Amino acid sequence: MSDAAMKLVVVGAAGRMGQALIRMVHEIEGVVLHAAVGRPGSPFIGKDAGEIAGLGPNGILIGDDPLAAFLHADGVLDFTTPATTNEFAALAAQARIVHIIGTTGCSVEDERKISAASRHARIVKSGNMGLGVNLLSVLVEQAARALDPADWDIEVLEMHHKRKVDAPSGTALLLGEAAAKGRGIDLSTHSVRVRDGHTGPREAGTIGFATLRGGSVIGEHSVIFAGEGERVSMAHSAGDRSIFARGAVKAALWARDRKPGLYSMLDVLGLSQN
Amino acid sequence: MSDAAMKLVVVGAAGRMGQALIRMVHEIEGVVLHAAVGRPGSPFIGKDAGEIAGLGPNGILIGDDPLAAFLHADGVLDFTTPATTNEFAALAAQARIVHIIGTTGCSVEDERKISAASRHARIVKSGNMGLGVNLLSVLVEQAARALDPADWDIEVLEMHHKRKVDAPSGTALLLGEAAAKGRGIDLSTHSVRVRDGHTGPREAGTIGFATLRGGSVIGEHSVIFAGEGERVSMAHSAGDRSIFARGAVKAALWARDRKPGLYSMLDVLGLSQN
Amino acid sequence: MSDAAMKLVVVGAAGRMGQALIRMVHEIEGVVLHAAVGRPGSPFIGKDAGEIAGLGPNGILIGDDPLAAFLHADGVLDFTTPATTNEFAALAAQARIVHIIGTTGCSVEDERKISAASRHARIVKSGNMGLGVNLLSVLVEQAARALDPADWDIEVLEMHHKRKVDAPSGTALLLGEAAAKGRGIDLSTHSVRVRDGHTGPREAGTIGFATLRGGSVIGEHSVIFAGEGERVSMAHSAGDRSIFARGAVKAALWARDRKPGLYSMLDVLGLSQN
Amino acid sequence: MSDAAMKLVVVGAAGRMGQALIRMVHEIEGVVLHAAVGRPGSPFIGKDAGEIAGLGPNGILIGDDPLAAFLHADGVLDFTTPATTNEFAALAAQARIVHIIGTTGCSVEDERKISAASRHARIVKSGNMGLGVNLLSVLVEQAARALDPADWDIEVLEMHHKRKVDAPSGTALLLGEAAAKGRGIDLSTHSVRVRDGHTGPREAGTIGFATLRGGSVIGEHSVIFAGEGERVSMAHSAGDRSIFARGAVKAALWARDRKPGLYSMLDVLGLSQN
Repeated sequence: MSDAAMKLVVVGAAGRMGQALIRMVHEIEGVVLHAAVGRPGSPFIGKDAGEIAGLGPNGILIGDDPLAAFLHADGVLDFTTPATTNEFAALAAQARIVHIIGTTGCSVEDERKISAASRHARIVKSGNMGLGVNLLSVLVEQAARALDPADWDIEVLEMHHKRKVDAPSGTALLLGEAAAKGRGIDLSTHSVRVRDGHTGPREAGTIGFATLRGGSVIGEHSVIFAGEGERVSMAHSAGDRSIFARGAVKAALWARDRKPGLYSMLDVLGLSQN
Repeated sequence: MSDAAMKLVVVGAAGRMGQALIRMVHEIEGVVLHAAVGRPGSPFIGKDAGEIAGLGPNGILIGDDPLAAFLHADGVLDFTTPATTNEFAALAAQARIVHIIGTTGCSVEDERKISAASRHARIVKSGNMGLGVNLLSVLVEQAARALDPADWDIEVLEMHHKRKVDAPSGTALLLGEAAAKGRGIDLSTHSVRVRDGHTGPREAGTIGFATLRGGSVIGEHSVIFAGEGERVSMAHSAGDRSIFARGAVKAALWARDRKPGLYSMLDVLGLSQN
Repeated sequence: MSDAAMKLVVVGAAGRMGQALIRMVHEIEGVVLHAAVGRPGSPFIGKDAGEIAGLGPNGILIGDDPLAAFLHADGVLDFTTPATTNEFAALAAQARIVHIIGTTGCSVEDERKISAASRHARIVKSGNMGLGVNLLSVLVEQAARALDPADWDIEVLEMHHKRKVDAPSGTALLLGEAAAKGRGIDLSTHSVRVRDGHTGPREAGTIGFATLRGGSVIGEHSVIFAGEGERVSMAHSAGDRSIFARGAVKAALWARDRKPGLYSMLDVLGLSQN
Repeated sequence: MSDAAMKLVVVGAAGRMGQALIRMVHEIEGVVLHAAVGRPGSPFIGKDAGEIAGLGPNGILIGDDPLAAFLHADGVLDFTTPATTNEFAALAAQARIVHIIGTTGCSVEDERKISAASRHARIVKSGNMGLGVNLLSVLVEQAARALDPADWDIEVLEMHHKRKVDAPSGTALLLGEAAAKGRGIDLSTHSVRVRDGHTGPREAGTIGFATLRGGSVIGEHSVIFAGEGERVSMAHSAGDRSIFARGAVKAALWARDRKPGLYSMLDVLGLSQN
C-alpha cells in the first residue's frame, strides 16, 4: 500500500452497494480500503470485508464504530440511508475528510444538515453517481437551450430489464428535467407520457417519453432532438452496475484536494455551470 | 424504347402516388410508361403525364379509357380505390396482363373479386409495397417462432414525424402481427400499448409497443427480442416515400413471367412460406 | 410582403444550392426573397427565380448586378466560390447588411478579407451550416474535455451513400477534431483510421474512425465515448440536404440585430465559448 | 433433485467456461449437475464444484474419471480442447447420451471422429453457442438471398472492448459469410475490409466491414442492408458472457428427445434449412 494512496472507508459495507464499493476500491489505482463499517448488531460485524465482497480475505474486518474508522482516513463512501448519512456527515466534518454521498431519499432537513457539514468537509452528493448519465444530463440541457422549440421536438426513450416495475425510469425523468431546464419550461406540464390510438399531431414544445422493457437490459437512455430534415440524439448505455461505485471512487479522488464545500458530479466532471 | 422493356400503365396518374409511380417507371431500367389513366372528368385528362410528374413532357397524355390503355400493355400499377381497382382487375384479366395492386381498404367482397380475376391475371397485392418492411415482417415472424417466449421478450418501437396523428403506426402493428403469428398467439390479447407509472414487472409472452414522434422522420421501425444477457433487433428505416413506388415496379418485373395467380410481396422477395 | 420580413438576396441563384436557398426563403416565416443574383453571362440571367427553383413564378428575375441587388436588402445568402464571396463581402460591408457565407475552400488571404469586411458587415461563416452538426461538435468537445482519456475511448462512426468517394467524411473529421480539441491533443497523431487483422489492444488516448457506405444514406455520424461498464454516444442523422439552406436562413435571422462582426454557427446556437 | 431433471456432466469443470456452465446448470430449471470432471492431475480434482464456481458447496466433487461420470448421466457439456472432446465423444456414444460441443479448433480428422460418434450419440456442435447470433446468421442469409445485390449494399459493423486484438471479430466474419452464402458469392473476393482516403464509389455486390473498439463492450454486431430510400438492419448485442453457457444448456434440453445425430444450433432454433 502506497503512502500516496487515498485511504477510504466504506460504510454500509455488508450491503450490495457496499460490496461493490469495496471491489471498486480494490480495482482502482490510487485508493486503498482503510476501514469497513456495518450496521451495529449486523451479523457481518467482525467478518473480513474482502471475503464478504468476493475478493478473498484482505484483513480488514467490518466494524461498527465509524468514529474510529474515520480517524486516520482520507474519505468515506456512503450509499446508506438518510439517517446514517447525516450521522456520517457530522463525523466526516469533524475528521475534515472527503464524504461521497450516494444516499437517496434525503429530506429538506437532511439536506440542510449535509449542507452545514460541508462547511468543514468536502462533500460530493448525487442521486446518480454514474459519470456518463451526469455528463449526458448536462449536454441535454445545453442542446435544449440551443435548439428552438418551434423547430425541434424532444423525445426521451429508455429500455430496462423485464423486472423493472415502474415507467419511465428515474433517469429518463432526470434527462427530461434537464431538457425542460434548458428550455426554461416545467416538465410536468409539458410532458407526453403515453401515445395510443388517435393522438393528433405532436404539440410543439412538449417532451415525449417512451418505454421499452425486456430481457436483462441494465439501462439504456436516449434523448432525441428531431428537427426538419435532421436529428441529433444522445444516448447512454449501462453495461454494468459497477458504474455507480466507479463514479463514487472517482469523486473521492477528485475531492481530495478541494476546499470544503458541497459538490455535485457535475463539478467532478468539470461541467458545473455556476 | 427497347422492345424488351415492360410496358406499364399507371392508373390514378394525376394523384400523388400516380406521379411517384410515373417517376419511378422513368428511373428503373427495363420498364417503360405505356399509358397513364386518370379519373374521368378530372381536369388532368389530356395533360402530359411526364409534365404532371415533374419529369418534363414525355408525350404521353393522361387518358380516361383504361380498356384502350391496357390493350397493348404488359402491366398496370394501381394505387387507387377499391371500386376502381375491381374494375381494373377485370380489365387486366381480360387483357391477361400483370396487375400490381397497392390499393388499401378492400372489403371481403372486393378481395373475392380480385381473387377471381387472378385466374387470368398475374396479380401482386400488398398493403405495403416496400421491399424492406415486407422482408422485415418475414424475419420477425421467423425469429418469434425460433425464440422461446419464456426467455425472450418482444418489443416494437417506431418513430414518425410530428404530423402523424395516430399511434402505433400501421406498420408497427403489422410487425407486431408478424411476431404474434410466429408465436402462434393473438396480438390483441397479448399486446402492451402503454406503460406509465407503476406497471409491475413485464408479463412473459406479451408484445410491447413504444412510439416516438418528432421532426420530419419518414418512418423508422424496430423489433427487439430481449433475452437474458443478449438482444437481437431488426430495424427498418425509410428515407424516402418513393420506396412504395419502387416496390411496385419491382413487383411488376417479377410477375411478368409468372403464371396467373394472386401473389404477395413475399412471393416477390422469394420469402413466401407456402 | 410584410415590412417586418427580412429581405434576403440569394447569390449563385441558378445553382443547386442557390435553388435550395430560394425554396427555403419561401418556406420560412419572417424572411422574403428580395433579389436573386447569378453569374454574369449565365443563361439563367433574366429567368424567373421561383420557376428555376421549382416553386412556380415569383416575379423575381435572376440578375447579374449584386450592387443593385444588395442596395435595399437586409442580407445575402452566399454558397458560391472564394473569389465571388470576397467580392460580395466588400459589397455587403458597404451596404451594411448581413452576409451569410457557406462558401468553402477559402484561402488565408480570403479569410483575411472576409475578416476585414466584418468590421462593417454582420458576417456568419461556417463550413457546415447545419444546426445539428454544429451543435454536436460543441457537445463532443465538452464531453471529450470532461471524460478522462485513460478511462474513456473515443470512436467516430459515419455512414454515407454508395456514391461517396472518400472516407472518413469531412464531418467525421470535424467531429474528431472537436474531440481532439476537448482533450487538448492533435488529431493527426492520435487517430486510428484503419483496423484489420492483428491490431493489438486499443491504445489509450487514440480516436478511432469507422466508415460505412451503402444505399442512399444522406449522412449519419456518431461519436461514441466508451468507458468501463458504460457508454455515452452522440449522433446526427441528416434526412434531407435542405438542412444547410435552413441553417443559413436561421443564421441570417439571428444576425439581423447583431453588431458588425465575424460570427460562426456556434454563435447562432448560443454555444460559443469565447 | 427431480427424477425428470436432465442430469448433466460438466467437463473442463475448473476452467472459466466450466464454471460458467456449472452456474448455468444451477440457474436453469429442468437440468441438474450430475458430475464435474477436470483434467487429471489438476489441483482442483477433489474440490467441491459448486464452491469453485462461486455458488457455495454443492457436494459434487470435481473428478478425473469421465467414464464413471457419464455412466448414469443424460448429457455432457463440453467446451474443452479437440483432443479431449474426441475422447468424450467416444464415451458419450457408448453411454448413448447427449454431447454438447462448444470446443473450437477441431481439425478435419477431429470432425470425422465426432461425426462417427454421432451415429450413437446426440451431438450438438457449434463454434458459437449463443442463440441470438445463430438466429441472426440465418436471418442475414435469408435477407441476402431476397434482396437484389444491384440495389442493396451489405455492411457489417462490430464493436468490442478495447482489449480485443484482432479485427473484424470472428462473429462479424461469420455474419459476412452468412450474407455471402445468401448471395451465392465468395466472401473473400467480395469483402471490403478497409476504407480510408480516396476510395472511389462503393462497388456493387461487395460486403463491407467496419470495426469499433472501446471500453468494456462485450460484443455488438449489426448487418445493414442499404437500398435506395430504405435500410434494413439486424443487430445482436451481448451483455453477458453467460449466453454461451445458456445456449449449451438449452441445446442439451432440446437434444434430449432426438434421435442420434450431429446437430447444430440452427436445429435447436428450428431454423435448419435442410
